[in-house]
Amino acid sequence: MDEMRLWIGEPRFDLAHLAHVELITPTLDESVRFFTEFLGLIESGRKGNSVYLRGWDDYAHHTLKLTAGPVPMMEHFAFRVTSPEALDRCVAEVEKAGLGIGWIDGDEGHGRAYRFRTPDGHVVELIWDIEWYQPTPETKPALKNQASRFPARGCNLRRLDHINLFAVDVRACRVALQETLGMRFTEGIVFDDGSEKGAWLTSNNKGYEVAITEDATGTPGRFHHVCYAVDTREEVLRAADIAIEFGAPIEYGPHKHAIQQTVFLYVIEPGGHRVEIGCPGARLVVAPDWKPIIWSQAERQRGQAWGLQTVATFHTHGTPPVK
Amino acid sequence: MDEMRLWIGEPRFDLAHLAHVELITPTLDESVRFFTEFLGLIESGRKGNSVYLRGWDDYAHHTLKLTAGPVPMMEHFAFRVTSPEALDRCVAEVEKAGLGIGWIDGDEGHGRAYRFRTPDGHVVELIWDIEWYQPTPETKPALKNQASRFPARGCNLRRLDHINLFAVDVRACRVALQETLGMRFTEGIVFDDGSEKGAWLTSNNKGYEVAITEDATGTPGRFHHVCYAVDTREEVLRAADIAIEFGAPIEYGPHKHAIQQTVFLYVIEPGGHRVEIGCPGARLVVAPDWKPIIWSQAERQRGQAWGLQTVATFHTHGTPPVK
Amino acid sequence: MDEMRLWIGEPRFDLAHLAHVELITPTLDESVRFFTEFLGLIESGRKGNSVYLRGWDDYAHHTLKLTAGPVPMMEHFAFRVTSPEALDRCVAEVEKAGLGIGWIDGDEGHGRAYRFRTPDGHVVELIWDIEWYQPTPETKPALKNQASRFPARGCNLRRLDHINLFAVDVRACRVALQETLGMRFTEGIVFDDGSEKGAWLTSNNKGYEVAITEDATGTPGRFHHVCYAVDTREEVLRAADIAIEFGAPIEYGPHKHAIQQTVFLYVIEPGGHRVEIGCPGARLVVAPDWKPIIWSQAERQRGQAWGLQTVATFHTHGTPPVK
Amino acid sequence: MDEMRLWIGEPRFDLAHLAHVELITPTLDESVRFFTEFLGLIESGRKGNSVYLRGWDDYAHHTLKLTAGPVPMMEHFAFRVTSPEALDRCVAEVEKAGLGIGWIDGDEGHGRAYRFRTPDGHVVELIWDIEWYQPTPETKPALKNQASRFPARGCNLRRLDHINLFAVDVRACRVALQETLGMRFTEGIVFDDGSEKGAWLTSNNKGYEVAITEDATGTPGRFHHVCYAVDTREEVLRAADIAIEFGAPIEYGPHKHAIQQTVFLYVIEPGGHRVEIGCPGARLVVAPDWKPIIWSQAERQRGQAWGLQTVATFHTHGTPPVK
Repeated sequence: MDEMRLWIGEPRFDLAHLAHVELITPTLDESVRFFTEFLGLIESGRKGNSVYLRGWDDYAHHTLKLTAGPVPMMEHFAFRVTSPEALDRCVAEVEKAGLGIGWIDGDEGHGRAYRFRTPDGHVVELIWDIEWYQPTPETKPALKNQASRFPARGCNLRRLDHINLFAVDVRACRVALQETLGMRFTEGIVFDDGSEKGAWLTSNNKGYEVAITEDATGTPGRFHHVCYAVDTREEVLRAADIAIEFGAPIEYGPHKHAIQQTVFLYVIEPGGHRVEIGCPGARLVVAPDWKPIIWSQAERQRGQAWGLQTVATFHTHGTPPVK
Repeated sequence: MDEMRLWIGEPRFDLAHLAHVELITPTLDESVRFFTEFLGLIESGRKGNSVYLRGWDDYAHHTLKLTAGPVPMMEHFAFRVTSPEALDRCVAEVEKAGLGIGWIDGDEGHGRAYRFRTPDGHVVELIWDIEWYQPTPETKPALKNQASRFPARGCNLRRLDHINLFAVDVRACRVALQETLGMRFTEGIVFDDGSEKGAWLTSNNKGYEVAITEDATGTPGRFHHVCYAVDTREEVLRAADIAIEFGAPIEYGPHKHAIQQTVFLYVIEPGGHRVEIGCPGARLVVAPDWKPIIWSQAERQRGQAWGLQTVATFHTHGTPPVK
Repeated sequence: MDEMRLWIGEPRFDLAHLAHVELITPTLDESVRFFTEFLGLIESGRKGNSVYLRGWDDYAHHTLKLTAGPVPMMEHFAFRVTSPEALDRCVAEVEKAGLGIGWIDGDEGHGRAYRFRTPDGHVVELIWDIEWYQPTPETKPALKNQASRFPARGCNLRRLDHINLFAVDVRACRVALQETLGMRFTEGIVFDDGSEKGAWLTSNNKGYEVAITEDATGTPGRFHHVCYAVDTREEVLRAADIAIEFGAPIEYGPHKHAIQQTVFLYVIEPGGHRVEIGCPGARLVVAPDWKPIIWSQAERQRGQAWGLQTVATFHTHGTPPVK
Repeated sequence: MDEMRLWIGEPRFDLAHLAHVELITPTLDESVRFFTEFLGLIESGRKGNSVYLRGWDDYAHHTLKLTAGPVPMMEHFAFRVTSPEALDRCVAEVEKAGLGIGWIDGDEGHGRAYRFRTPDGHVVELIWDIEWYQPTPETKPALKNQASRFPARGCNLRRLDHINLFAVDVRACRVALQETLGMRFTEGIVFDDGSEKGAWLTSNNKGYEVAITEDATGTPGRFHHVCYAVDTREEVLRAADIAIEFGAPIEYGPHKHAIQQTVFLYVIEPGGHRVEIGCPGARLVVAPDWKPIIWSQAERQRGQAWGLQTVATFHTHGTPPVK
């Protein structure tokens, strides 16, 4: 169990939260319409071939960047750190691990950022300097402690919740995020043969901000899904009602994950990416010495929380698609 | 605005979370029945004149300690720190501020703890060494990532959310918690004359774990309320349905606070303490450089989020009662 | 108690349901925008100075007709009967009671109709021949047992629920609806001096379709409000969230009525009419011999279900306004 | 389509509502515990080998009668009529159809009743004279328009909603209920070969009170399930949470039926009967001339509302079990 890195001394608090994801889509206009009209995200900018989006309670300029491109893939995702010093510490650890790529000048909504790769090849960005979202007259909220107006449109996604990476080597990716960034390992799947099939990591009080699950196709560096949170499980059901009206393909759900207990609905956006509408309820992980909950092969075979079996495509559908 | 301690360099992450509250009640049996049968807390132990309770998702041995005594009052409340080293740092800061009381050996559910006083006189405990709740056959949950079985009884309070202190000097208490423990100031009330009427502080991603509001009676060191969280706003409404069935006096609500946007119901337990059933929805404060939202006198006069005026007793009813 | 017309032999089932309401508004465009963008009603037609609207689950061509006019008032409301024969029976009873006005040729969405007046002067229409709503490509629902697509816009009002008339003589109006149309009296308010302050009547399994409450201004024939139903009490709370974003004035609520237990939010539309967003939950009145629940003066003084006092304007604000 | 008995003149309103169901169970004590502790029904009496139960908002003495017996089966179910005269009319129609059994003296909670058989052999009771539930001090509600106190226990089932019969000849059973009792046919399943696979009938504004579906085992007269309603879809999800805590076997759900749009959870009680926890939302069928919605074979193959396929046991598991 050492390899799970249970209590190893003072926890690091260098990461603040998952900051944004950039998805390449071959159908930019349809994808934007899907995320804004159906899912209720708010457009906060356009530049070049990219459209920037956010949930109504996301404080940052954007949490999703959609970029036109020939093949759907996750270009990068980003964490915001807790201070400039934390950024330096993380970069040092990443470079020590030999995973670093280097600095970029920044993008709409944030300043310079450091890029590195997970062992599986996913590109990760670390940022401190960020632009807060400035509401327009149309998006100004009634209550000033709210990032922007409740849209009352589509599924009304509230805030970026987490991403799920596909990986060939789940354990290597998980350990790298623990060691370089100080992420905490909250739940995992380990099969009878010792293989690690899934890992859920967090940098704050959410039960997870990054999930890593095994790609059954054996293709490294792919993307499984991005999840935005809504306030209630009923809103997840309502999202399913709206999905069928909108013609959005439902892959799986609504149901409740056993792991992390998120109530979920998975839909496929026009570009091919899987998107989750999720509700964690009032669940938080606040214990600083939380021990990872490890689910066995037998436990996983019992299905999700209320008994539904995991859909087969969950182990193979990712972006980019496998030829 | 310097006194609000906006960005002052690297944030501290020494506190993990609000850990528990001890309330003295002159009606112990009735208070226990109120918290278990009506509110749905789970009893986890008894010792001497005290009964230990927790919500079904609280990982610790207890989050509420009810102790028999002649006058209702908050005996102490506690924070759990993020490491033994963090405990040392906090104690050093507290002693430097001249607020320290000293170490105690511990209690049911936790080891040695350091006690100090807020400028208003509330007793605060800092703990690291804690006993995790061990489910009995009756409270064993179906899903092993859950602290105990969902009770399906009364209001099914999920987890300790926050406390609200009454204070004569709100600003002094607020600054003390920022300086000694590194708490973050997320929202506040400042009137036209510059007087600070309320302050909301957090140590994690909850919008607040401690609120401090001005005691209109001018009595130092009193207690306003303790709040447990439920998953949905509908459960707050259902708690109101159950309150009238149970004969629990509703003081205020259900409605939605403008500050922090919590949907609330306030009831008075038999011993005289105010208890909130609250729902924050999926709201989290994840920005490490969140700037305090300051509400003006004029803004407060507009009432709560949906327009209800604050009830007059909210400024005077506290424990112990004022003779 | 005889005057309450408790069991008097076989109940009549001549009325099917409340069919529609016509409101005159001095601000037609703003009113239409309020009902469609904020409340989520669907426009189904325009003719002359009138706009026809309906909830997404209303099967009829319209349930609300907004007509431009100098003064806000309820022009008429309509019941649909259960058969052509039932229409004849109702007309005969109305004429016997001396309340009849006569036949009209019909309107958009329905055929010929019979008009009469309540003792207070409200105009009521009885219709059989009705046009079912025909979805357009934009409003075609995914499930064919649904009248139209879930709009996913604003408050998503589902269906017309009830109306509330103001009356100078509540008892006379109530008895007239019982005697002429066979409506059933389910709840009422009778004060200590024997005066009838409110009456709730139904023609089906809803607890009420028409409420009649005393107009404290002593003005006959005014209108109190129209209510549309949503599926959950949470949607009533969400409507309050959306109301403050939209700038819709909240008069009262959210809270729960003691009478009929509807969870309510009252807003004032731009033309001056009061509109309720209401949720009855799964409550139905199915007993054919339900005895009216009579609330006393003392019981009413206790406030609504969870203790909120009735807002003063509830006894005086109606349409048309009193000069 | 004539056989669907579309508009055939004035509708009859002789049935008020589904009144109760009697289930034989080989495990009476466990079944009672399941219905009271897990599902939240209230026991209202015992006599001989029977226990009488009801939801907190059921106005009658009971809506469920559990009787000890060697084999699980539905002994009978009952409708309440709208008047003594309606009872006479229904009995006359039943006898004319040659389906009558005869009068019984009554039971706990109701007076004399007339019994008959559906073409498939299910025993049906028609009753007028009924005993209203009288709350005890423990079940007295805070609001006097409510049948009894909200239990705040288990799933808090509110009221009897509907039953589902298995039948060898769906059409014969459906037509018999239309012709003898005047029930209205709201939705149905007709396959490409013209065979009627399912029929949903109502006697009031619920979309259905009796469903009849084809028994794939070819055994006549069996029972599929009984459903109680809760107020929200979230409560259906919560029932699933509680089911796994309680160890109640979930057969199917939570999900949403395409037909009638009920959100459902199916569990199997210890005696072997299927029980549904269902939520119709605010859906009502109020049109007196509602035309049956007929679902084709192709439409049914698309699965339930959000895409889940119907579970195989749904076509075979019934009571009594097939040897």
